[in-house]
Amino acid sequence: MNDAVTRETLIPRLQDALGAHAVLGDAPDIVGYTEDWRGRYRGEALCVVLPSTTIQVSDVVRLCAAAGVPILPQGGNTSLCGGAVPPADGPAPVILNLARMRQVRQVDAANGSMIVEAGCILKTVQETAAGVGRLYPVSLGAEGSCQIGGTLSTNAGGTSVLRYGNTRENVLGLEVVLADGTIWDGLRVLRKDNTGIDLKHLFIGAEGTLGIITAAALKLHPLPTQHSLAWFAPRDPAAAQQILGRFQNACGSRLSGFEIMNRHQLDRVLANVPNRRNPLADAHAWHVLVELSDTRDADGLEAVLTQTLGEAIEQGLIEDAVIAANDTQRADLWEVRHSVSEANKKAAVGLTTDCAVPVSSVPEFIDAATRAVHAVVPGLDIAIVGHMGDGNVHFIPMFSFAAWAALPDSGSMGDILRACVNDVAARLSGTFSAEHGVGQTGLPLMQRYKSRAELALMRTVKAALDPNQLFNPGRLVP
Amino acid sequence: MNDAVTRETLIPRLQDALGAHAVLGDAPDIVGYTEDWRGRYRGEALCVVLPSTTIQVSDVVRLCAAAGVPILPQGGNTSLCGGAVPPADGPAPVILNLARMRQVRQVDAANGSMIVEAGCILKTVQETAAGVGRLYPVSLGAEGSCQIGGTLSTNAGGTSVLRYGNTRENVLGLEVVLADGTIWDGLRVLRKDNTGIDLKHLFIGAEGTLGIITAAALKLHPLPTQHSLAWFAPRDPAAAQQILGRFQNACGSRLSGFEIMNRHQLDRVLANVPNRRNPLADAHAWHVLVELSDTRDADGLEAVLTQTLGEAIEQGLIEDAVIAANDTQRADLWEVRHSVSEANKKAAVGLTTDCAVPVSSVPEFIDAATRAVHAVVPGLDIAIVGHMGDGNVHFIPMFSFAAWAALPDSGSMGDILRACVNDVAARLSGTFSAEHGVGQTGLPLMQRYKSRAELALMRTVKAALDPNQLFNPGRLVP
Repeated sequence: MNDAVTRETLIPRLQDALGAHAVLGDAPDIVGYTEDWRGRYRGEALCVVLPSTTIQVSDVVRLCAAAGVPILPQGGNTSLCGGAVPPADGPAPVILNLARMRQVRQVDAANGSMIVEAGCILKTVQETAAGVGRLYPVSLGAEGSCQIGGTLSTNAGGTSVLRYGNTRENVLGLEVVLADGTIWDGLRVLRKDNTGIDLKHLFIGAEGTLGIITAAALKLHPLPTQHSLAWFAPRDPAAAQQILGRFQNACGSRLSGFEIMNRHQLDRVLANVPNRRNPLADAHAWHVLVELSDTRDADGLEAVLTQTLGEAIEQGLIEDAVIAANDTQRADLWEVRHSVSEANKKAAVGLTTDCAVPVSSVPEFIDAATRAVHAVVPGLDIAIVGHMGDGNVHFIPMFSFAAWAALPDSGSMGDILRACVNDVAARLSGTFSAEHGVGQTGLPLMQRYKSRAELALMRTVKAALDPNQLFNPGRLVP
Repeated sequence: MNDAVTRETLIPRLQDALGAHAVLGDAPDIVGYTEDWRGRYRGEALCVVLPSTTIQVSDVVRLCAAAGVPILPQGGNTSLCGGAVPPADGPAPVILNLARMRQVRQVDAANGSMIVEAGCILKTVQETAAGVGRLYPVSLGAEGSCQIGGTLSTNAGGTSVLRYGNTRENVLGLEVVLADGTIWDGLRVLRKDNTGIDLKHLFIGAEGTLGIITAAALKLHPLPTQHSLAWFAPRDPAAAQQILGRFQNACGSRLSGFEIMNRHQLDRVLANVPNRRNPLADAHAWHVLVELSDTRDADGLEAVLTQTLGEAIEQGLIEDAVIAANDTQRADLWEVRHSVSEANKKAAVGLTTDCAVPVSSVPEFIDAATRAVHAVVPGLDIAIVGHMGDGNVHFIPMFSFAAWAALPDSGSMGDILRACVNDVAARLSGTFSAEHGVGQTGLPLMQRYKSRAELALMRTVKAALDPNQLFNPGRLVP
């Protein structure tokens, strides 16, 4: 590596460093990397590199820095907001995909920790932990294909945040390649470490703009062996919230899931995903999946479900309820919930939003956002599905493909309706992105909803860690 | 504020901004602020300011910045490593004590959150949360006098980390005054918010070097109403670790405390603190306090304790055990544990250390550190007390006052013995500061144990956020 490297000579230099098999340059080879899985975002890349080691990642960073070519780090490409693919305009970056870095480097059941490389699939991590009697709790629809590195860079949420926190709360340490190619080894597996600025939190949720996460030390938990699930139809979101509070008071951290869904969302799943059935006999306006988990005492879980739901039925807070009787029924209930993304992709054009508000404000949010959307398009279908215990509601205005195609300016309509929803969240001290991240969809929203002081502080951090705008330039902080 | 402000005119300008009552300049008034509670660290201050509002904090920062005088933010002054008082040399800073900012701004039981100002006493926060049926879990010996701001700036640990994490994990948002006087309002109470770099984690644990925390949004939990405690004598630390694992498997997050103590430490407490008694009839080499907590099912907790400890006694892992029969007995057990700092201060000169290692390495750490210390001073008394479930062991070589005074160079002896202990921790991938922070004691250790890449990254962040070295210059990152 003696000669100066330029944009023109970068590909051969990358091939020298990684081997030709690890550098994909031809259009047919890289289309799966430059386009998002829903086909909504598409960009150009100079090439795709697939390093196998941290040293190779460092080599790529140094070469790209020397050539002045930006890098877009990429995991399983399952982003819901265009975060994992290049922008439609601007200089084509090198896509650095971590798929080949998939070693599990260490598992320590007694310490409750494991060290994995960024390219490990989330499901593999879950299964490896379970294999030693421990739980890695992060769980979400894309877990069969998303990579740990992507879940870290987006601070992924999912269905277990209520009990175990976001991805951020389940990380003990990181290994990161910095903008000058330096490898920061912060792979500690300690529960406590107060020695200086906590650097790992800079990179978690930074969407690849500050460094490239190559490995992580993850926190494992005691593995719950008992699960009790119920599906019930609350009278309305306010009733659901009241019942959430009762479960929290009654059984504390045994409450591991509390997912709400409206009738339209359930109908989309039933109509578009094979082998899904309505858990209740009749149609209801609102549905909740509640899960209790424990390391022992299955009878106690059942008793809490039976008593809490029974009382709520007597008081008219719930219209109907069913408790899953066995593992198959429990799996079926979760399948209904996890089929939402697939159903909504097939069914129509859904304007996905990802707001969170204080838990106490969820009913008001749903109500006000519905009114705001219907003021623009009266009677429009709205799918609502959310992690109610976290205050995180995906409020999704839905157009049939035909209605969408018939709009004179569908792009503007999308912007207007999303703004209706996000404005309501902002008014309730909420956020426009609870768990999906900023990606491309959220970039203009950062400008709209973030304070000047906050944007300025983020820009200061970005300029300090990535002074030459090498990592994902233009992303995250507008 | 039209005239240029200088070091000479700063005090009157501060008096103009805050009122004369809020600026203490005379030596007798400020001695409680310039000396630490154990009398080990003492420095000079230009004055002490006691602002009542965030705006006033911002005013102080602007004035000090203009005068080129550094600021030392201070809470309850309970640091165990000189972190809250000025250095013995260097320019005298303005001490900015947050004691008068003690409003509880908001409590939302349904959302599980509260917003408090930095000067609130930890115990007040705990009690306010309990008043609405919620738990703020951070708990430590100094909770009656330490301020929330100090616990945030040091990412305080304590006895409930095993179940609820460090202070960091219990924060939802912050309000911070930055180096140019800007107020960053990040007081969100959301469980999920993925909109950009997570700035709050920069300031948590930064020991006042990056900004001044003026208020925080804290995370509250369901309030456990049932507590079962036992005190037992494990055969050795390895047996204690084995029993820890059994409790984790048996009852998951019900395990809320697992504190180990050696015989010497218990003897110090019994000899030096009135009304403390040995929970067991006989003397034993090792002692463990285990606590299970739950929102329900007290009988279940008792059953787990009885069964797990009973089996361990049969297997010879435990020599004796007692289960607390009522609230008084439970309080007595915790009093023994919480009396350690008081006892050690009275008893002798204790060379406090604060290592954490992977939980699986705790027995090896205790063994190797003991050998290392005894290689320097054969037979030296060692008090050991630790949060075993976090891998955090306070390993404390003890000298009688007479023996300490008789040493030709006690300062060097202290450095040598602490280095013995910290080196063992480092060899086991541990840390020299699990929960106390860096303060003044740890500053040379940062240089010794941190990688160049990590120190460089911390310096980059410091230079970006505090370019003129206004906040606690020279602290945290050497």
